[in-house]
Amino acid sequence: MLNKILELASKNGLLKKTLLPKVKIDQFNIGPIGLLLQNNLKLEWFYNVIINKDITVFPSDNNMSDTFDYAKDFCSQKLPFGIAEMKAYKKSYNSDEIIEYYKKAIDTEKLCFEDLLRHEENMLMKCTIFITPNNSTSFFHQWQRQRRMWWRKFSASPGKYSLSDIRSEEDGTQFVEISAKYDWGSQSLETLVLDKQDRNYSSNQLQFKEKKFMQAHTITSQVNLSTILLNSICDAFDEAPFQDKKRLLFRFHRKLAPYKISFALSGSNQASLAELNDLAMYLCKQLRSNHISTLFIPNSSRLTLDSQYQQYDQLGIPYTVLLNGNTLKNGIISLRSRDTTLKEQIHVTELVPYVEKLYRNY
Amino acid sequence: MLNKILELASKNGLLKKTLLPKVKIDQFNIGPIGLLLQNNLKLEWFYNVIINKDITVFPSDNNMSDTFDYAKDFCSQKLPFGIAEMKAYKKSYNSDEIIEYYKKAIDTEKLCFEDLLRHEENMLMKCTIFITPNNSTSFFHQWQRQRRMWWRKFSASPGKYSLSDIRSEEDGTQFVEISAKYDWGSQSLETLVLDKQDRNYSSNQLQFKEKKFMQAHTITSQVNLSTILLNSICDAFDEAPFQDKKRLLFRFHRKLAPYKISFALSGSNQASLAELNDLAMYLCKQLRSNHISTLFIPNSSRLTLDSQYQQYDQLGIPYTVLLNGNTLKNGIISLRSRDTTLKEQIHVTELVPYVEKLYRNY
Repeated sequence: MLNKILELASKNGLLKKTLLPKVKIDQFNIGPIGLLLQNNLKLEWFYNVIINKDITVFPSDNNMSDTFDYAKDFCSQKLPFGIAEMKAYKKSYNSDEIIEYYKKAIDTEKLCFEDLLRHEENMLMKCTIFITPNNSTSFFHQWQRQRRMWWRKFSASPGKYSLSDIRSEEDGTQFVEISAKYDWGSQSLETLVLDKQDRNYSSNQLQFKEKKFMQAHTITSQVNLSTILLNSICDAFDEAPFQDKKRLLFRFHRKLAPYKISFALSGSNQASLAELNDLAMYLCKQLRSNHISTLFIPNSSRLTLDSQYQQYDQLGIPYTVLLNGNTLKNGIISLRSRDTTLKEQIHVTELVPYVEKLYRNY
Repeated sequence: MLNKILELASKNGLLKKTLLPKVKIDQFNIGPIGLLLQNNLKLEWFYNVIINKDITVFPSDNNMSDTFDYAKDFCSQKLPFGIAEMKAYKKSYNSDEIIEYYKKAIDTEKLCFEDLLRHEENMLMKCTIFITPNNSTSFFHQWQRQRRMWWRKFSASPGKYSLSDIRSEEDGTQFVEISAKYDWGSQSLETLVLDKQDRNYSSNQLQFKEKKFMQAHTITSQVNLSTILLNSICDAFDEAPFQDKKRLLFRFHRKLAPYKISFALSGSNQASLAELNDLAMYLCKQLRSNHISTLFIPNSSRLTLDSQYQQYDQLGIPYTVLLNGNTLKNGIISLRSRDTTLKEQIHVTELVPYVEKLYRNY
């Protein structure tokens, strides 16, 4: 199952497959379409964690301690506040270890998303909230729910995401994991920690005054960008029965989809196809001017409509605009939904506002 | 002048000043607020270059050649298309060189934006467009105008951006620079190159068939993220006369501003201040739920209104919501503009849709 997903993702530019020469094992990088997906995922993480509705969170460079001091001062020594960091990092495996690892992972389908992609691409995304001891436990629970909701919000099957039980250490530190259940086993995604004496900061730094002096607790969420990316690829994969055959596709959430709109053309002769091609290009420019990521492949009309749809479904594009002979007569276009395969008809002048409306909400 | 800008930027978390111990020279990193600004700049670059209205551009990892092959295949061997890369890189100076460099730069105010920030933070942003020889020259000119327009769009004084004359090499390669004119001299920002035999790709790769076989030309735009960041800080700096004094502020474009909205409170007694504080917090949550980056500093009301405004102006926040005693009676709030210092009155229930409208367009 996982192999099938990785194959389809590589075929469609989400991943990039490289054969390790000696041992003939496939290794995966992020492909061009995958980078678009990753960019959307980063942005949604940013919206959820940094422009977080409850607490002011400051982004940080690698020096979290400096940022902490800045934030503490900025907030006039008042809790709560948070700091967040996105940090590229490398894991150093030697290549024999990598090969051994891949072999085992691919054979048993028991692997960790974090390790499947080549390691130079990895990015740690970490957010730490500083909070008074009185509020820390209730906020820890709220934060758990909020983060699980984030994973569910973008999922084609939200039920697969769950929180582990809380594991406590002797010093009072509590750990919770968010994981996703797949056919091939459970996949750990994110770690949440409530720490009553965070060693990354000095006890002097963590001292705050509110009526009396106390030491701030920290609540930390930690996740890898490549884990998020691979999870959204696996989550979106679907094999749906369709007209006696199987339809393979990626059901990306519309906020995450690398491309939001594509074009399918069907014309009876060369002249009308050329005209439809120009119309599609014009509509594509209009959509892109509104920052809607739009795919237009010139001359895609040489393929049948079904193969055009198939390609777009496998790229996970939520809606395809169908232009045909009638469009040139009456200006009516069809908007085909990837998920339902149904079409609705709208006038060509209404495309941009209609698409904006479709993509506004979650 | 530059020193004054760097001071103010460091004071407000856009930059972070570190004193090099032995020689007592200041060195600069990006501060927490600067990271928010940088994030917005990256996003706008992404919108302009990747979701570019004319040509399909694919993001790339470090292996541009792989991405090229993918893109060529994806576009059924048809020109034009493009690939774009964001790549972290380090410059290796030894520390004596750095110190020498900084000394000279700060003294003479003749420095290159790229080199002012610590080097580990630097990111190269590069976009290459592949195009037929017939169209390359006219597209090169169009691309120059388009990129200059991008710089001007976000500027408080667009006149300072200009294109250099075209410099041609013997093999036909053409270079153009976009630069900005400051008090302390001209600052080079972006390089545009039209290359007729791009050596980064094999002649086999660059061969396309369109009626007959030909070699694609490439048009490349190259810029550093730290250059963009420092330029937008310097561009936004302003010293405006105001009520017999001088008002120092950053006039960030509303799409770039690290925070879009802040709150100023003014109340006559403790009870009404506490109520206004709760209202501000509620409005802040509403705005953030709509992904509007909003700053709320609890208990900022201990400062006078003027000092609150001063802080927000120096953070470059375009609008501040003023809540006062009347707000509790009739629900009217004032929205103060950073640029004009004028206020307009709106009802509290209209804040979110009104702010969304303010920030929708460029």
